Amino acid sequence: MRIYSGEKLCNKCFTKSIEDKVKATISKNRMFKPNDRIAVAVSGGKDSVTLLCILAKFEKLFPKASLCAVTVDEGIRGYRDEAVTFALEACRKLEVEHFMISFEDLFGVRLDELVNRLKAKGKGSNEVLSPCAYCGVLRRRALNVVARQAKADRLALAHNLDDEVQTILLNIMHGDAPRIARVKPVLEESHPLFVPRVKPLCEVPEKEIAFYAYLKKTEFQTIPCTYATTAMRNDIRLMLNRFEEKHAGTKYTIFRSVEKIRPALEAAEKEVFLQACKVCGEPTVSEICKPCEMLRRIGVK
Amino acid sequence: MRIYSGEKLCNKCFTKSIEDKVKATISKNRMFKPNDRIAVAVSGGKDSVTLLCILAKFEKLFPKASLCAVTVDEGIRGYRDEAVTFALEACRKLEVEHFMISFEDLFGVRLDELVNRLKAKGKGSNEVLSPCAYCGVLRRRALNVVARQAKADRLALAHNLDDEVQTILLNIMHGDAPRIARVKPVLEESHPLFVPRVKPLCEVPEKEIAFYAYLKKTEFQTIPCTYATTAMRNDIRLMLNRFEEKHAGTKYTIFRSVEKIRPALEAAEKEVFLQACKVCGEPTVSEICKPCEMLRRIGVK
Repeated sequence: MRIYSGEKLCNKCFTKSIEDKVKATISKNRMFKPNDRIAVAVSGGKDSVTLLCILAKFEKLFPKASLCAVTVDEGIRGYRDEAVTFALEACRKLEVEHFMISFEDLFGVRLDELVNRLKAKGKGSNEVLSPCAYCGVLRRRALNVVARQAKADRLALAHNLDDEVQTILLNIMHGDAPRIARVKPVLEESHPLFVPRVKPLCEVPEKEIAFYAYLKKTEFQTIPCTYATTAMRNDIRLMLNRFEEKHAGTKYTIFRSVEKIRPALEAAEKEVFLQACKVCGEPTVSEICKPCEMLRRIGVK
Repeated sequence: MRIYSGEKLCNKCFTKSIEDKVKATISKNRMFKPNDRIAVAVSGGKDSVTLLCILAKFEKLFPKASLCAVTVDEGIRGYRDEAVTFALEACRKLEVEHFMISFEDLFGVRLDELVNRLKAKGKGSNEVLSPCAYCGVLRRRALNVVARQAKADRLALAHNLDDEVQTILLNIMHGDAPRIARVKPVLEESHPLFVPRVKPLCEVPEKEIAFYAYLKKTEFQTIPCTYATTAMRNDIRLMLNRFEEKHAGTKYTIFRSVEKIRPALEAAEKEVFLQACKVCGEPTVSEICKPCEMLRRIGVK
């Protein structure tokens, strides 16, 4: 049963309701054009495999569109290796072309090694960021590069409603409320090397994706990342789930609430002109891009 | 010890630090002019009695300024009666002129009676608001009226950092994020009947006001309101305290975070022209003001 709406659906109606919702999110936000080549970022977890399944189903209705999957191998032994097999298996079953990129090939360093360097550097220093902070920046870059290699017009990410609402609160609680402007269903930047990102699952609660995946007997990775920290995001996740239980619909309400102020925040954003990074040539707001700066900091570049 | 800053202060330095912070908030936000007549809204609770004590101390440094206290008697038996005695006692000790207004005189109904009417109306209806919703609207109106009766240029409210941050999150979680624009240290409206409101304690955490009051041996009311509901605000309060304990400084960070987006939200706000309410003549955005509309709904006017 869907508590926030009071609906009680059979399994078939439930899966249809999820697909309808994704369809509505896509059309409302004009995520795709009929002849787009769409790259789905597939990590091998339940959200991304589910997104691939749903988009593969939709793609059949658009003969001019084409779908592919992209995966980033960060180089995390005992975690990503397994996830990649789920990603590959999903693509094989759905007959979707698959592209892979690794931190090692792109940046010359696996995440495992990067973490070791961070640990060595971190002794006696407070300035070292968490592995997740590094991984997030590098993964975003890698996804953009591999999406381009796949000649994609759009990069589809599997962020769900919970992810988006967590990010909104995290920005506020981290002191960076203006960043809310960038938590949105479609992110475009005016630079030829930037592949626009879309989030077709952004209005589906995490729980419902999990149930959809269960009904569809989707196989995906279930173990968490070795380096997953018990950071603030996790506290926010727990808090939101507690609120949702007591005040059904809280997550949706926050999502809609922030939609109302996003235009004002976007209008106030300084227009950013992306330029080519002096080191790697990728689009960036400053002289040297964030990934290059991070890699320099730990002595890779 | 103040965890978020790592300071460890003796009692004397602690009370000075609170007074300095209030001073800084006042001057940064230009809350008062040297010859202002300031009405402090004193309910009799720890925050408002403390604000009165601190402003009475400051007032001595500004010979042209004058201070008075205003209290609203909502008509809550076994709660407000006691609080009023604390308010009166504080004014007597500090030699501050005191003005009082009651819901009964102003609206022709005590809150106790209003709650009974709500209960009678509420049977079988979902549309009835909580007593707190009614009381909040009517109390704000009453404060504006009594501040005017006291010929005040400014109405000083004792909202603390916790109150402000709770209100911010409450607005977001209730689906009304644009209202964040109105949660601010100084609220002015361009209408001659509106007394501008200022919040000199808005950067002081609730806990520190409590400790200040304890050190100053301030006497205040401690029992909670009879009608206080266990509404969402209370859940948000608990959640914020839990976060503050784990991530010291969270409340400040949220306050500062939202400061960064407030100008954008204010710029996007439609300019509101206040007009005179057709029933009572008080300033309002619509034909009939909220208090009059509420009183009509429960059959008082």
